[in-house]
Amino acid sequence: MLIDRHLLGPGPANTYPEATSALAAPLLGHLDPAFLTVLDETCDRLRTVWQTDNRRTLPLSGTGSIGMEAAFANFVHPGDVVVVAINGLFGQRMADVAGRYGGKVVTVEHEWGQPIDVERVLAAHSNPAIVAAVHAETSTGVESDIGALGAALERYDERPLLVADCVTSIGGIEVAADDWGIDIGYAGTQKCLGVAPGLAPFTVSERAWQRRVENPPTWYLDLGMLGDYVTGNSSGGRTYHHTAPTAMVASLHAGLGRIVEEGLPQVHARHHEAGEMLRNGLDELGLELFAAAGHRLPELTTVRVPENVDSAEVRGRLLNEYGIEIGAGAGPYAKSVWRIGLMGHNAQPATVAMLLGAFRQILGK
Amino acid sequence: MLIDRHLLGPGPANTYPEATSALAAPLLGHLDPAFLTVLDETCDRLRTVWQTDNRRTLPLSGTGSIGMEAAFANFVHPGDVVVVAINGLFGQRMADVAGRYGGKVVTVEHEWGQPIDVERVLAAHSNPAIVAAVHAETSTGVESDIGALGAALERYDERPLLVADCVTSIGGIEVAADDWGIDIGYAGTQKCLGVAPGLAPFTVSERAWQRRVENPPTWYLDLGMLGDYVTGNSSGGRTYHHTAPTAMVASLHAGLGRIVEEGLPQVHARHHEAGEMLRNGLDELGLELFAAAGHRLPELTTVRVPENVDSAEVRGRLLNEYGIEIGAGAGPYAKSVWRIGLMGHNAQPATVAMLLGAFRQILGK
Repeated sequence: MLIDRHLLGPGPANTYPEATSALAAPLLGHLDPAFLTVLDETCDRLRTVWQTDNRRTLPLSGTGSIGMEAAFANFVHPGDVVVVAINGLFGQRMADVAGRYGGKVVTVEHEWGQPIDVERVLAAHSNPAIVAAVHAETSTGVESDIGALGAALERYDERPLLVADCVTSIGGIEVAADDWGIDIGYAGTQKCLGVAPGLAPFTVSERAWQRRVENPPTWYLDLGMLGDYVTGNSSGGRTYHHTAPTAMVASLHAGLGRIVEEGLPQVHARHHEAGEMLRNGLDELGLELFAAAGHRLPELTTVRVPENVDSAEVRGRLLNEYGIEIGAGAGPYAKSVWRIGLMGHNAQPATVAMLLGAFRQILGK
Repeated sequence: MLIDRHLLGPGPANTYPEATSALAAPLLGHLDPAFLTVLDETCDRLRTVWQTDNRRTLPLSGTGSIGMEAAFANFVHPGDVVVVAINGLFGQRMADVAGRYGGKVVTVEHEWGQPIDVERVLAAHSNPAIVAAVHAETSTGVESDIGALGAALERYDERPLLVADCVTSIGGIEVAADDWGIDIGYAGTQKCLGVAPGLAPFTVSERAWQRRVENPPTWYLDLGMLGDYVTGNSSGGRTYHHTAPTAMVASLHAGLGRIVEEGLPQVHARHHEAGEMLRNGLDELGLELFAAAGHRLPELTTVRVPENVDSAEVRGRLLNEYGIEIGAGAGPYAKSVWRIGLMGHNAQPATVAMLLGAFRQILGK
């Protein structure tokens, strides 16, 4: 079966060629000194895209959602108040996961398509242990200002930990973990990093580390044990935890290498330019955008399905006639919104031209 | 950096060529109908290697240890008595994980290098909810008789669920989940299945499914939600859970395809023949085996390091002069035992000849 897709939905995206080649390179063992060098360099490169000095910056062995799980499993002490800003599906999921680990969850609901309102989040509780928000909502294509949220948290007598979901932002737009005051950040490889799904880049501040749960219910994601393998223990040694997904780590290493070589600002600029070109083109086609103006992600554009157009039929024709995958809307917008991703290797003018051309044909514009 | 290894340790092993190629094939989205076909076929092929009809047979999105986590997270109700047979590192880990999820753990310790003793396991408690054991102990190279354990469990008034760790057995030696009465089985891709690390093949019997935890603390491994994506919900639809690691699933699909094409009995025979050839060759070199006679895994042979030989030096020379990785011993046997794997694509006479030749040179025999 030979199938070749242009993955222009909300992720996974097509991978950087360097990342693809590395996946099929000869496999290394997880304790091989050569692999440990690759792992160390991968963590260094992750610090670059996270814009952090956090020692505890590492790829977790699962897809993006495992990062969310690790964030709450390791930092929610039973009874902790966790304020969750919700402006889409992934905020809802954060609230679910935080509750499973014993958090007293206080949700702050926003209209889908709008960014989070920092003042409303702060007003929700006087003394939370954790405040959590999504940087780039994959369900709506909206960017929220995590830097403003982090700064505002300083107003509390005891500053809560800031958990940020950066799954769809990292590698596409700026994520400044240290400057923004992110304490626990998680991401995925399969979107703007241009690597296949299978790893969750994760970073933890020193402040958060001191407040972690010592014996979390999860063994696989126990950061205390994991850190001893990935970043070394206090005496500089490494302790085997679980078998690392070595092929995926090698691929992430190569994908990040490509990003670092191109230059992070250049990569971000490329995403911004592609997003703008797409928005302009959609506007010319008479299509209306969903996400609030001024808060639109360049890497993920949400479009209202025109009246009298069948969303699934258009997506089906794109897939079957052009090999182009775009996404349906999420949750209540499943039939009324399309999601178009221009992530990683796909953030380039030729991809935009291809998509707009196919859209023009199918919509008869 | 060009590094090419012969991975003859306890795993990961070199991958089947078909599995390697599939990793680098064009990526598919996790909701693409073409991918869902691949996923369905992968589950079918997993049923073949598990020798099960269980509808709930699927690859979990993490390395082998995530299977262990899912087993206890979804089936231990707080306060449940969990009897764990321990004859090596992975039995110890089972006890740790079962305790984290609220189980009252009763351990039955065995000497490392020996198989588990079914009568001692049964005598440990009169009414356990779960009995757990490792089929192929990766730390010692010992096979235990899971079929005998499963049959013995019928003696209880209320039969406990049987959890079996088949990480190092599946795809190498027979695993007959249904005939043996395994209720919850988990495995890894990176050993005898000949695929890179990153997925945990998992199977659940109908009896176990009825007794699962409805709302486990883990979201990522919540089998109720996961099953709706992988095997479909009761109305036949699929619900998005998390982004599946599509490249890894495609690779597992191809690796299993190779095994099914070669024939499962033939693949098992190939492992048995390679293991026997290795044991004979080691005997000729005057080396002593560690695992109890009659219970030695063909795919993982444990050898006592001779007196006056430095384990690490020999492993270093194998790696640096020959590109051959073998494993140190585990736990208390770290320096006194070597672990030699002949798994998946490595279970062939040429690999055995290569390893014995290198050993002969280095040991000066």
